[in-house]
Amino acid sequence: MSKLISGFSKFSKEEKVSWLVENNFQNPLESSKIIKQYWNKNEKLQSLHDDFIENTITNFYLPFGVAPNFIINGKTHTIPMVIEESSVVAAASLVGKFWSTKGGFKTTVIDTQKIGQVHFMYQGDFSDLENYFKAKEYELYKSTASITKNMEKRGGGILDIQLIDKTKQLDNYYQLHVTFETKDSMGANFINSCLEAIAKAFGNEKIEVVMSILSNYVPECLVRAEVSCEIEKLGGENPKQFAEKFKQAVDIAQIEPYRAVTHNKGIMNGIDAVVLATGNDFRAIEAGAHAYASKSGTYRSLSHCSIDDGIFRFWIEIPLALGTVGGLTALHPIAKLSLALLENPSAKELMQIVAAAGLAQNFAALRALTTKGIQHGHMKMHLQNILNQLNTNEDEKKQVVAYFENKTVSHSDVVAKVEEIRNAN
Amino acid sequence: MSKLISGFSKFSKEEKVSWLVENNFQNPLESSKIIKQYWNKNEKLQSLHDDFIENTITNFYLPFGVAPNFIINGKTHTIPMVIEESSVVAAASLVGKFWSTKGGFKTTVIDTQKIGQVHFMYQGDFSDLENYFKAKEYELYKSTASITKNMEKRGGGILDIQLIDKTKQLDNYYQLHVTFETKDSMGANFINSCLEAIAKAFGNEKIEVVMSILSNYVPECLVRAEVSCEIEKLGGENPKQFAEKFKQAVDIAQIEPYRAVTHNKGIMNGIDAVVLATGNDFRAIEAGAHAYASKSGTYRSLSHCSIDDGIFRFWIEIPLALGTVGGLTALHPIAKLSLALLENPSAKELMQIVAAAGLAQNFAALRALTTKGIQHGHMKMHLQNILNQLNTNEDEKKQVVAYFENKTVSHSDVVAKVEEIRNAN
Repeated sequence: MSKLISGFSKFSKEEKVSWLVENNFQNPLESSKIIKQYWNKNEKLQSLHDDFIENTITNFYLPFGVAPNFIINGKTHTIPMVIEESSVVAAASLVGKFWSTKGGFKTTVIDTQKIGQVHFMYQGDFSDLENYFKAKEYELYKSTASITKNMEKRGGGILDIQLIDKTKQLDNYYQLHVTFETKDSMGANFINSCLEAIAKAFGNEKIEVVMSILSNYVPECLVRAEVSCEIEKLGGENPKQFAEKFKQAVDIAQIEPYRAVTHNKGIMNGIDAVVLATGNDFRAIEAGAHAYASKSGTYRSLSHCSIDDGIFRFWIEIPLALGTVGGLTALHPIAKLSLALLENPSAKELMQIVAAAGLAQNFAALRALTTKGIQHGHMKMHLQNILNQLNTNEDEKKQVVAYFENKTVSHSDVVAKVEEIRNAN
Repeated sequence: MSKLISGFSKFSKEEKVSWLVENNFQNPLESSKIIKQYWNKNEKLQSLHDDFIENTITNFYLPFGVAPNFIINGKTHTIPMVIEESSVVAAASLVGKFWSTKGGFKTTVIDTQKIGQVHFMYQGDFSDLENYFKAKEYELYKSTASITKNMEKRGGGILDIQLIDKTKQLDNYYQLHVTFETKDSMGANFINSCLEAIAKAFGNEKIEVVMSILSNYVPECLVRAEVSCEIEKLGGENPKQFAEKFKQAVDIAQIEPYRAVTHNKGIMNGIDAVVLATGNDFRAIEAGAHAYASKSGTYRSLSHCSIDDGIFRFWIEIPLALGTVGGLTALHPIAKLSLALLENPSAKELMQIVAAAGLAQNFAALRALTTKGIQHGHMKMHLQNILNQLNTNEDEKKQVVAYFENKTVSHSDVVAKVEEIRNAN
């Protein structure tokens, strides 16, 4: 048994599984069975999924759920969500319904610009470089003509190319800072291809190109989502007190990074679930959102709350560079289904739906935190998961749930209770 | 057909699917077929996955791949990765192998402390509050005794409780800032349960608790991973030039946020793939990592590079609050398999493996960017995906791949080429 291997990527899938289980597991047969029980019976479908990445061994199931009753700008949506964390879809569903009777979500796309850069080193005089850039500018656009042709037909393309002097931050360091509009595609391949063409056209013996690459920092690919209503309409025993405490929680997340990070993490629970479901890249969205949260120099909440003239208002502004064409959006059958469920939105429409899902998640978390506490709902789900793990039957489940109704759930206490019930029978 | 629905969560799964396809899709039968083709034939297994979240409709497949040949602190690992983005696993595999002949990855856990806070408002005199806190301190620990009992047996528990005055940032705002050690569990439920107990014990008529919640900002739950070798051992045509350009790319990501965000996004491709595979929460990891990247007031690279005395050194420091027990780790059969593949690591060991995967991904991206450019590898994978989408056969694939060997891949050009081949036959 050796874990070092040559030429693994060239193995067939069966050979990969054989090597994997024989050289990496105590029980090869059992491990192989677990791996293969997740293979789809439809070989063609399985092969499609296998080809998405390299060295594919099996499918990792993430639950695909839906949150109905989201009214966004007057239109009702059933939102697809892919997430492993319990209570996220339940929370979204409750909040979607809650706001559906209070005007729903109001969303607007603020801008859709994306950024890419050619990073280079240059040791000469800056005015020479500026003149060279000005003389070359037209040629830089021209160098991308074959790449931008189709994007321009769809109304996108390169909006601007700027030469930026960064030598104060790093010796000899300059950029071509390029602004793009990529319409309904996320645009990563398009932007990177354009940048590599631009870098090639721009290079000369005095310019050392370090790299050419899109940025996932997209502060101008920005969307806003809001909910608002008269305070009394918030319902509950004391809506005014609820609104004020809720606002305190948001205000705290504006000034305290330890809280802001978790506050925004909760927003991303909703955002990423829809991002994943629609075949978009959640690492790109996460990076852009958290960097945006830190743009003032202090890491802050992405959402905001106000109470003015008896009106409670809660909103988010978040950068979301999403695509509804290209990438996995059409390739992954469930991603395609998600987009169909959303009536095949444009990228702009998807930005708004995703932002609403993020705001809803944040509303749910803050409502729980400032009233019953977060553990009440979590523990219910946690208990169900432990009970499944222990292979409890329906009768056992019922008894244990009743027992923990007013107690703190811990793994060991649940195990003890289940054992007690089993020993009693 | 109405998208508004009451009592959806109470429906059976079959009823949910029926309502969904009949009220949300143009072609209910076809949509139902797509949804159900992803259900596992093993009903008990499917039911396990359905129960992870609410309103589960089907399984979303993410590819599960492996990257072999990772030598970390002298031990060889085959790393499980769950990711939808092509070239991430291929890159990890190449880099794992590359460093396996150069001493492998050296990793250390710097610290494992986690943070939670009770946020509260108080309008009186601070010294009164301080005295009250001091008098109550023992009781605060005692209030969590039933929750911390088992954690303490495993060597964890509450390490510290501090009263913090935040009134300069927000009127009347104070915190109990609590430090935890949660050993092999991620600890979210444990921390939140402790905090809610502490808040309950601390509250009085002058203290208005706003919320009690763990922080995903964990700058003291920190791990370091490094690779290093003599410059000549880096190989290639000009290892010295390679090393210098590589270092320039890292230095740029230290001072330029537009680049740093994408640089770190690449790191997270590797990190999240292992986080997902092992049943951990990638939103928590993302939030903590990006907030850490912004801690200086400017968003910066998480990795660093130095060239001294002929030695190339590349390292990362990243906060990773991971668990290897609890949550989905034992519940999700493939997450459990991933942990078995890693020889059931402790949380500390997993932190090191995940950090190595992140550093490897960053090395791969920077090597590609500073040499051939990122598009070379991406486009190969992109082409394969488009060819699958067009249902090309092996012969068509071969012809198209040969045609695009030295050309820029665009979706429309590939479609045109495939049509040309098909029309010629």
